Amino acid sequence: MYEGVVQDLIDELTRLPGIGPRGAQRIAFHLLQADRDDVQRLTEVLTVVREKVRFCELCFNVAEGERCRICLDPQRGDTQLCVVEDPKDVNAIERTHEFKGRYHVLGGAISPIDGVGPDDLRITELVSRLSDGRITELIIATNPNLTGEATASYLNRLVGPMGLTVSRLASGLPVGGDLEYADEVTLGRAFEGRRMMHA
Amino acid sequence: MYEGVVQDLIDELTRLPGIGPRGAQRIAFHLLQADRDDVQRLTEVLTVVREKVRFCELCFNVAEGERCRICLDPQRGDTQLCVVEDPKDVNAIERTHEFKGRYHVLGGAISPIDGVGPDDLRITELVSRLSDGRITELIIATNPNLTGEATASYLNRLVGPMGLTVSRLASGLPVGGDLEYADEVTLGRAFEGRRMMHA
Repeated sequence: MYEGVVQDLIDELTRLPGIGPRGAQRIAFHLLQADRDDVQRLTEVLTVVREKVRFCELCFNVAEGERCRICLDPQRGDTQLCVVEDPKDVNAIERTHEFKGRYHVLGGAISPIDGVGPDDLRITELVSRLSDGRITELIIATNPNLTGEATASYLNRLVGPMGLTVSRLASGLPVGGDLEYADEVTLGRAFEGRRMMHA
Repeated sequence: MYEGVVQDLIDELTRLPGIGPRGAQRIAFHLLQADRDDVQRLTEVLTVVREKVRFCELCFNVAEGERCRICLDPQRGDTQLCVVEDPKDVNAIERTHEFKGRYHVLGGAISPIDGVGPDDLRITELVSRLSDGRITELIIATNPNLTGEATASYLNRLVGPMGLTVSRLASGLPVGGDLEYADEVTLGRAFEGRRMMHA
């Protein structure tokens, strides 16, 4: 609909996740009218990010050096390892300030429909991290959906014989949520996982 | 929350319209994991767009040369001029295939609250385009909101003495919409602008 490069920009923006044709158009016109400096900062950071950012060689979280800042932090415990699908999940858990151990980022979840099997995830690397026996609890924090659950059971079966504690994040009603609006599966899980109250 | 450049990228993305912190995070991680070629295409088009794209010297629509493709098109009529706020509006009207005249892009609407007065818009340029008398109808297609309406009345008063027909796009119920869900102002406008039906 637009002339040459404006349409090219809209097309490239539409390829980004969560941006539809209208959003892309809005961003394109914003950039056309923005300060040249703003656009340059964006292009620079896009270039730099691909050059500088890599994945931590130990846990596969994002890192600017060989290891990420969590793996490098001497303050964190070495006995608990939390397994997540994605670097975004590391960040989500960090925001809770609940966990002071280390992470392992799988890089996705087992999903036969999408052609993702155990070999496509960093599971071999996980097993090798567990082999020296320093880690005593494996906390599986894959997503509470079909593929995340499948990955959790796969890992549970795999590491079961290694004799460490394996736990899974609790499913249940979201805090501040409304029982009435909870879906059946969540509500069912909340029942199943109910905890005793002590007087 | 993230290390250096990843956070820089998220910050830059959050500055774009319609992208919040979560959307920015999602796009940043998409770009981190995307093909190097994809990211390069995006940075290239961002650079090129700022170098190549300018605004048509006649109508102020986006253009790759001195004039936009609508101003250059010999097939279009020279008697009707449609005034819009923004190049995006040109595109929206073009999609209807209803209008075969020329455009004039104001570059915004009069909005004292935002410090935008008539002098900040391309109104002088509009008046000079009207001065040779070739244009016989001015169609004011500013947005049907407070600032768009203010701009429309301002223009109507300004060009009134020039003796051309001035029209305004109809306001009313959106086609396919539901009367029940229309807001009062729209419904009021739909009443006010009702048309006679002929048997």
